[in-house]
Amino acid sequence: MTITPLSHLHVVECATFVAGPSCGLALAQMGADVVRVDLPGGGSDHLRWPLARSGASLYWSNLNKGKRSVALDYRTPEGHELLVDLATRPGPGAGILVDNLVGRHRVTHEDLLARRADAISVHVLGFPDGRPAVDYTVNAAVGVPGMTGSATSSEPVNHVLPAWDLLTGSTAALGLLAAVGRRDQTGEGSRVEVALADVALSGVGALGWLAEAEQQGDRPQHGNHVYGSFGTSFATADDHRLMVVALTPGQWRALCAVTSTAPVFAALEDALSTDLHHESARYELRETIASILRPWFAARTLEELRGPLDEARVLWSPYRSMREAAADARADQRSVARDVDQPGVGPMLATGNPLRWDGPAPVGDAVASPELGDDTEEVLAESLGLTTHEIGDLLDREVVALAPARRATSRTTTDTRESA
Amino acid sequence: MTITPLSHLHVVECATFVAGPSCGLALAQMGADVVRVDLPGGGSDHLRWPLARSGASLYWSNLNKGKRSVALDYRTPEGHELLVDLATRPGPGAGILVDNLVGRHRVTHEDLLARRADAISVHVLGFPDGRPAVDYTVNAAVGVPGMTGSATSSEPVNHVLPAWDLLTGSTAALGLLAAVGRRDQTGEGSRVEVALADVALSGVGALGWLAEAEQQGDRPQHGNHVYGSFGTSFATADDHRLMVVALTPGQWRALCAVTSTAPVFAALEDALSTDLHHESARYELRETIASILRPWFAARTLEELRGPLDEARVLWSPYRSMREAAADARADQRSVARDVDQPGVGPMLATGNPLRWDGPAPVGDAVASPELGDDTEEVLAESLGLTTHEIGDLLDREVVALAPARRATSRTTTDTRESA
Repeated sequence: MTITPLSHLHVVECATFVAGPSCGLALAQMGADVVRVDLPGGGSDHLRWPLARSGASLYWSNLNKGKRSVALDYRTPEGHELLVDLATRPGPGAGILVDNLVGRHRVTHEDLLARRADAISVHVLGFPDGRPAVDYTVNAAVGVPGMTGSATSSEPVNHVLPAWDLLTGSTAALGLLAAVGRRDQTGEGSRVEVALADVALSGVGALGWLAEAEQQGDRPQHGNHVYGSFGTSFATADDHRLMVVALTPGQWRALCAVTSTAPVFAALEDALSTDLHHESARYELRETIASILRPWFAARTLEELRGPLDEARVLWSPYRSMREAAADARADQRSVARDVDQPGVGPMLATGNPLRWDGPAPVGDAVASPELGDDTEEVLAESLGLTTHEIGDLLDREVVALAPARRATSRTTTDTRESA
Repeated sequence: MTITPLSHLHVVECATFVAGPSCGLALAQMGADVVRVDLPGGGSDHLRWPLARSGASLYWSNLNKGKRSVALDYRTPEGHELLVDLATRPGPGAGILVDNLVGRHRVTHEDLLARRADAISVHVLGFPDGRPAVDYTVNAAVGVPGMTGSATSSEPVNHVLPAWDLLTGSTAALGLLAAVGRRDQTGEGSRVEVALADVALSGVGALGWLAEAEQQGDRPQHGNHVYGSFGTSFATADDHRLMVVALTPGQWRALCAVTSTAPVFAALEDALSTDLHHESARYELRETIASILRPWFAARTLEELRGPLDEARVLWSPYRSMREAAADARADQRSVARDVDQPGVGPMLATGNPLRWDGPAPVGDAVASPELGDDTEEVLAESLGLTTHEIGDLLDREVVALAPARRATSRTTTDTRESA
């Protein structure tokens, strides 16, 4: 059974790149009707890498799964009005806009209020004062690359995962649901803003890193070690890499037991007057511990290690390539990943909602993304009550557009216009 | 004005490390009453690094801001009952548990249902089948470290940011609010599970990386370059590092203009029959572009660069240390970071909610964390209606505990017991 707790919500999303679209994705994966509005021809993220062999964007196709697509030129006055109309359509679950628009085409909260007093807008931006920022610049500014990478390096290391983007999207969705709850309770709308730079600052703050830097100074780069405990990477005899972690006393005992090093570490504790059952002691002696354990891992292949590590309940994982991760996800019947038939791409391994509801099945199965303009006619008719004639007129004047596959089957007079 | 859209919610959190506590933190920062339940003496994360000079955990103190703390030994049958009682207390906004408990002390959804048919439980776990996992092992398994770090390296590079933990916490909060909305609409409770491994798989899936790996093969490590566009790090004359990004044609033109390299790139486009206004072309020629731009940055100091880059509207940031990030946050009146007086620590730079509501002020100001057991008496009296005598009895038998500072002022008979 698929549970769709947000099926009463109608959200209009007019946002590019990762943060805004991942907000809409999280909502769509819990059953919300999310209408993504793009310029005809697509926004600046429509052809972002990675690309499929067909040339279609795997990035766009995966960030917009389960949404509906309206192609609409909101740079024209008429298109701008239509966007505001869509975002303020009547109904208790409607009147909600997520956007990251900037400049003169922006739909402001006041634009929405003029049509609907209880409108909810969630505006995603770079800095809270409106200056642009992206994950890469925000991460550099907030000090994380300077803590990442080898202890022998003096260069900052960017993470490739757009972590702040994804977290901003999730935070935006959280704000949106809180605003919906507030409206349900009080009747009031909300103007919510969420800036990448705030999310990053709040994120490192929540981990205690700002306070640490002020009180203890900057934490140096420390390679693949887990900070404040024991965990690091080891090479196997067949040149695989493993991440092995011992956060708790039980995990540490398991690691000592499987490697038969308990007597070594007991003698070391005596010699150095320390107690390695404390994770802080393990962190301080991380290089020593790693050096003692390294030959054991280096003498065994990954397949030789797998059984003993699992049986001893060591907390570990092989480092897998993305291709291996994809293959394993495909082989796992209970995985959140599955093949979908993506228009313009073909079969594509896609993921659903990570929340599992009332049992082992994922709440929202992986589904395909729309093609640009797939739902233009349907949404304009259903949300705004436009007639076939009115939609045909908007198509004529290129205020709105249809997906290529829709042009042939359009209920409007598109056919005659295209042959004119 | 501080807006607290979740002030009608009463959440019991019994969770350690980052994911569960950051779920409760997000809710507390929007006004929810979050009661964190810990073992007397603290859970396994109570003394996690980083530490303050006083020895208190800056990690714990920052992940539990604005919550209330109950110290309760849920390993005893009586303590377990009290935890279930707290999580199922009556009221439309109560009956909500967030936990990451494992093993025989776990509070199951069925435990809650026995007391409250519409209970909501949000259970955070490693793998969806219950096997343990942490951010470091999940990240290794999902292929990200193999894409991170220098193009000349063959070693995987762990990110230091526990990105999947933070995203799991935010996703858990999102599931919780969706479940509350569902209960408000239908009267039904929900059992929600969120596994770190699912969040990571769903995260790389949303970016199109699983589909990419299957269709294009594994993406190699590519250093600090932005994938699929142009962006990389440059060194300045005074040995600072900058992250400079040109995602859009406008950002690319700005970068060419300020560095006076437009004619160089125009000639290069002719020579190589390419068009660098396409971001994919910029990515393919990233090393060439970086080599042409590098001497311009290397000839100037950070302070010499700042004005021209900003005036030209280049998208860039200096790489800052965490200490510099903290100092800048402290200097910014509108920042989400501010000093709080943290018990056991003293003044501490802490962050509030990144969501800004109805204006420029952050919605939830930074506040201090409780000390362990600060609210034990108050919560037991208020939520469960226990009398002073009953609480005193629980204290006597060490089923519950108070914070040290509370022992002197306790309304119970603690004083006489302690002198007995």
